[in-house]
Amino acid sequence: MKRRIGILTSGGDCPGLNAAIRGVARAAYEMFDAEIIGISDGYRGLIEGEWQEMKRSQFSGILTLGGTILGTARTPFRNMRVIEEDNVDKVKAMKQNYEKMKLDCLVTLGGNGTHKTANLLSQEGLNVIGLPKTIDNDIYGTDFTFGFHTAVDIATDVIDRIHTTAASHGRCMVIEIMGNKAGWLTLYSGIAGGADVVVLPEIPYDIKKIAKAVEERANSKKAFSILAVAEGAMTKEEAKMKRKEREALRKEQGFVNISTRMAKELSEMVGVEARAVIPGHIQRGGSPSAYDRVLSTQFGVHAAELIRDEKYGYSVALVGNSVTHNKLSDIAGVPKLVPAEHQMVKLARNMGITFGD
Amino acid sequence: MKRRIGILTSGGDCPGLNAAIRGVARAAYEMFDAEIIGISDGYRGLIEGEWQEMKRSQFSGILTLGGTILGTARTPFRNMRVIEEDNVDKVKAMKQNYEKMKLDCLVTLGGNGTHKTANLLSQEGLNVIGLPKTIDNDIYGTDFTFGFHTAVDIATDVIDRIHTTAASHGRCMVIEIMGNKAGWLTLYSGIAGGADVVVLPEIPYDIKKIAKAVEERANSKKAFSILAVAEGAMTKEEAKMKRKEREALRKEQGFVNISTRMAKELSEMVGVEARAVIPGHIQRGGSPSAYDRVLSTQFGVHAAELIRDEKYGYSVALVGNSVTHNKLSDIAGVPKLVPAEHQMVKLARNMGITFGD
Amino acid sequence: MKRRIGILTSGGDCPGLNAAIRGVARAAYEMFDAEIIGISDGYRGLIEGEWQEMKRSQFSGILTLGGTILGTARTPFRNMRVIEEDNVDKVKAMKQNYEKMKLDCLVTLGGNGTHKTANLLSQEGLNVIGLPKTIDNDIYGTDFTFGFHTAVDIATDVIDRIHTTAASHGRCMVIEIMGNKAGWLTLYSGIAGGADVVVLPEIPYDIKKIAKAVEERANSKKAFSILAVAEGAMTKEEAKMKRKEREALRKEQGFVNISTRMAKELSEMVGVEARAVIPGHIQRGGSPSAYDRVLSTQFGVHAAELIRDEKYGYSVALVGNSVTHNKLSDIAGVPKLVPAEHQMVKLARNMGITFGD
Amino acid sequence: MKRRIGILTSGGDCPGLNAAIRGVARAAYEMFDAEIIGISDGYRGLIEGEWQEMKRSQFSGILTLGGTILGTARTPFRNMRVIEEDNVDKVKAMKQNYEKMKLDCLVTLGGNGTHKTANLLSQEGLNVIGLPKTIDNDIYGTDFTFGFHTAVDIATDVIDRIHTTAASHGRCMVIEIMGNKAGWLTLYSGIAGGADVVVLPEIPYDIKKIAKAVEERANSKKAFSILAVAEGAMTKEEAKMKRKEREALRKEQGFVNISTRMAKELSEMVGVEARAVIPGHIQRGGSPSAYDRVLSTQFGVHAAELIRDEKYGYSVALVGNSVTHNKLSDIAGVPKLVPAEHQMVKLARNMGITFGD
Repeated sequence: MKRRIGILTSGGDCPGLNAAIRGVARAAYEMFDAEIIGISDGYRGLIEGEWQEMKRSQFSGILTLGGTILGTARTPFRNMRVIEEDNVDKVKAMKQNYEKMKLDCLVTLGGNGTHKTANLLSQEGLNVIGLPKTIDNDIYGTDFTFGFHTAVDIATDVIDRIHTTAASHGRCMVIEIMGNKAGWLTLYSGIAGGADVVVLPEIPYDIKKIAKAVEERANSKKAFSILAVAEGAMTKEEAKMKRKEREALRKEQGFVNISTRMAKELSEMVGVEARAVIPGHIQRGGSPSAYDRVLSTQFGVHAAELIRDEKYGYSVALVGNSVTHNKLSDIAGVPKLVPAEHQMVKLARNMGITFGD
Repeated sequence: MKRRIGILTSGGDCPGLNAAIRGVARAAYEMFDAEIIGISDGYRGLIEGEWQEMKRSQFSGILTLGGTILGTARTPFRNMRVIEEDNVDKVKAMKQNYEKMKLDCLVTLGGNGTHKTANLLSQEGLNVIGLPKTIDNDIYGTDFTFGFHTAVDIATDVIDRIHTTAASHGRCMVIEIMGNKAGWLTLYSGIAGGADVVVLPEIPYDIKKIAKAVEERANSKKAFSILAVAEGAMTKEEAKMKRKEREALRKEQGFVNISTRMAKELSEMVGVEARAVIPGHIQRGGSPSAYDRVLSTQFGVHAAELIRDEKYGYSVALVGNSVTHNKLSDIAGVPKLVPAEHQMVKLARNMGITFGD
Repeated sequence: MKRRIGILTSGGDCPGLNAAIRGVARAAYEMFDAEIIGISDGYRGLIEGEWQEMKRSQFSGILTLGGTILGTARTPFRNMRVIEEDNVDKVKAMKQNYEKMKLDCLVTLGGNGTHKTANLLSQEGLNVIGLPKTIDNDIYGTDFTFGFHTAVDIATDVIDRIHTTAASHGRCMVIEIMGNKAGWLTLYSGIAGGADVVVLPEIPYDIKKIAKAVEERANSKKAFSILAVAEGAMTKEEAKMKRKEREALRKEQGFVNISTRMAKELSEMVGVEARAVIPGHIQRGGSPSAYDRVLSTQFGVHAAELIRDEKYGYSVALVGNSVTHNKLSDIAGVPKLVPAEHQMVKLARNMGITFGD
Repeated sequence: MKRRIGILTSGGDCPGLNAAIRGVARAAYEMFDAEIIGISDGYRGLIEGEWQEMKRSQFSGILTLGGTILGTARTPFRNMRVIEEDNVDKVKAMKQNYEKMKLDCLVTLGGNGTHKTANLLSQEGLNVIGLPKTIDNDIYGTDFTFGFHTAVDIATDVIDRIHTTAASHGRCMVIEIMGNKAGWLTLYSGIAGGADVVVLPEIPYDIKKIAKAVEERANSKKAFSILAVAEGAMTKEEAKMKRKEREALRKEQGFVNISTRMAKELSEMVGVEARAVIPGHIQRGGSPSAYDRVLSTQFGVHAAELIRDEKYGYSVALVGNSVTHNKLSDIAGVPKLVPAEHQMVKLARNMGITFGD
């Protein structure tokens, strides 16, 4: 059996991409006669026809390497669920290049945007397999995406370091964690870092409730407070608005960052010294953790198993402790958010963590 | 509602013990009128009546702290499934001290040995809740124990560091990973660390098969090999023996460590420079990882929820993504080993990892 | 011999404070009959009379602990070189409390501001010993302050993580490193992190020169650039202005952060995708590195040796590999900046690092 | 100006080798017209004529990479100070290959053994520059070798992890740190890790003194003890013997490791539960720390500066805060041991650390 496999990584940088690529490659070489084509910078390379035949040695020594050896770019069309007029040419180009490369299969590593395009290409008749990567953990149908737990480690380390400053100075520190729509990263790192207040995009907040929690601590022996706030957090009022409306209002108010705004408000309302910390991109870079190396590797190997079995149109997934796969059409573009009544939220409330709602 | 809760930590040191203790305490104080008694050094303190009333502040700042603030000791009776003659007094003492402390409930944090005793005390009429901790991940009924993933991180870091020496010197490095009966830690860290050979207690090995894998690499461009070997690994011949028989034979042969023996054999059989590395106790110490802090905290809070609901005789567990609980009588002392046909083993084989069988 | 020692930590949080406190205490208890008074929140506690007698056990287990067990606050008077009118009362209060505590000596841990006040109190007749801590490494007379190397580790780790994102996306990443006046932290972490461009407060920059370096890389195979920029960096034009003038101009221009401005300018000038990263407070928090634990411990012990020998009015220092001490009056408030012709700068230039001048 | 430079790495693996190689290469390419030849596996490659012309891109991305891209091997002749009969051919071969490669200069990265050979080749008329690498920090004329501080970080991390086990179980843990002749690594990591007892090769011990220190702690509130013991530690009696004599005696006594012997003795003498931990090779592997990346880079750049200036026969060094160089003939093979009266030893004694003498 022989298979020509194209691989691309699309969307934001994420720890574990190279480990997953290595998993696909090692298992493909082990199980069948594989030829692997590396496509540059995600769908851009597929559209513009930029690729290279990979040598076996290129997949060696990359297990621990951060980033992606293939390069990445944001999905070239925003939220492409259907082929819109101006995308017809791009899709055509992708199909032509797929033919030109003589691929038996295309493996795409990415998040929700990447999966939408993958599904679309699958519906157009290409053999596609998706691997769910994102530090946001917001892909439907998989318990965890790779990259997520490494980001939790990094964000937790940030909170740990801020903890000592907060405690030594008796300050209120507002740490802004990545996550525009999904609060998983904030929820996990907030609990792991011992945050007093955790604010998620899915649970709109009332600043007065947060101020009350900060004030109670300020008046106690432990004068400091740690707030883990998702970058996409919003007030109850804001949550009622449409996105454009909210963004317009914020712009008018001179909004820069949620953490900066919150620190300012709390310092005015409670009288504490409050500071914003915005670790930003460091949450998505660097070497994958042991957890993510195992997960990425398994995802990669399972993708190769699907190729061996000529099962296309799937996205690899972790369900419980099993690596399995979902139909691309079932999961593509369906975001997985934190349910307000999620067990972790309830457990967190039961130990006194404030969500500000 | 008021509850007096006794807590003890038993068995080997393990990251996350303090995080779990904190979880129990914070949730108990939050949800009901709790008094918490810290029992010293596991069951020893319960037998000998050594304990102290804890203050709320004692549970503060311990989330990231390695070890256990309560002290620990190995279970005082080996494999106590039934009350044997010479243990009658110990059990009596434990029941008397339980009364003396006026406990509503005893929370025990430990591994299989600890759970056996916990179950026995439960059958004797005490209100007991168990929390599964161990770096071995070998407790039945829970997908993961806390401490396991931190140990995977440490063992993986060890393999990473050894990797560069192996590659620079073209050596064969045999890394001995903790785990006498269960190979989970070796399996996970072996995959995460990119080991070429993984040897588990559950899958007896043939040294000739391992030698062949090492030889093939020695003759390739990448001259070095990384072996992740569980301390409890054994040959196919040894696996057929009874434990005492095997131990006697090994003693006769001057056996010290599995890794030392294997390095010697491989160096003789293949002619490579082979070295053993035995990281030992560092795999069980230190601050818990973010993953284990979340898991321990949730386990602790769930224990407090069970106490609130007066549900006793259970051990807290993770099943899929849910924190839940099993009957102590169902799981106490049932070891969870790596099935030879486990999906992870199959995935690993499919990417060319050798198990030596 | 008996000595009553007061200790305070002043100024910004910094790794190694607790290790240094422990060093003073352990050596004092070991060498003579010591009583130690912990003064709360730096000079604030000395002025307001807030302190506690410390127990020996309070100095145990704090070697690795970030922050300061004594609390800290910014120096209560800005740049106090002489006793100005409105400070007379504060100084009086400090002297009275020194008497009240019956101190033989006051040990102050802090940066340049702290040392100024320490020197002033010394000139007022108090027995004072200073320990130089700051992540900025900008205290005259010592090769290194404690806290600095830990901050280098953290900032380097930040650069490492950003590196993979930069490389995967072909981006220009501008990382803002702490340091308003002194560029040591940026210089060390920039070299350690493999930055292409390093911008220091001491070497004013010309954005056109930086743009040229970024453009050259953008046109090469390695399309990305890493810039390590001190928060206090300024253009050649800005460097000619007085501080107030510069600040006024920047305010007018809507200046927020140096890295944000630089990313915007480079993206406009070169056409690359440029992003700012501002790790902020994480650079000053958390557990001290091994290097800083050794340095802090030695500084602490040497302070106790000075107390034993009744040598007061000194600040402890590292010169070459020796721990020694300088007269407070010689070094207090003298900043140690990076000389433009410093050997490290020249070495960096010789390997192609751009300073933008 | 044009220079053909040969580079080799010799002796044990050590963090920072690749960073130093990169430093040489980047500075050479920047400053003059350089051609670089990578010689495989240390002097073996020079003797056997195994090398390759390096491309500029091969020096990219290796700053953080552990190990050495050139491969390494132990020096091919033990302690070669003079050309002994059986080495004549080897030296001849090295000179011939130097000619064959048309080198202007040979850069050798290694420890004391490597430097001896480098000096010998220099005396034979080759242009040689040495770079001092070793985790032992035992090279005369430089304050620090690169690799040392990374090893201190790793060894300290090991002690930290063991600390929690020791404290939780009330055990005496004997941690064996690398260093056969020089105790620098044990001294630094022992202080950084908060060891109670530090045993160095340079300060022979009396087990009774160590037992006394352990016993005193066992009887105190903090029942546990941490011992940091260099692998080359020896008793006062052993120190009086010649090496062969000592080794013979130890063999007779069934000696395996110093830590194992010490744990056994202390457990018998004091009655505590004592355990040996032997982290071994992990102390020399993995990515260099920020400190070592800076030092290696500077050493590499300075080597290129020397080549630019045609200054040969030197070994690069750190003296105080300056990077400088020593004559190879002055420092080759002169070991730098810990003086018994070294300031760090005295400071450590003053804070109550026991050296067992």
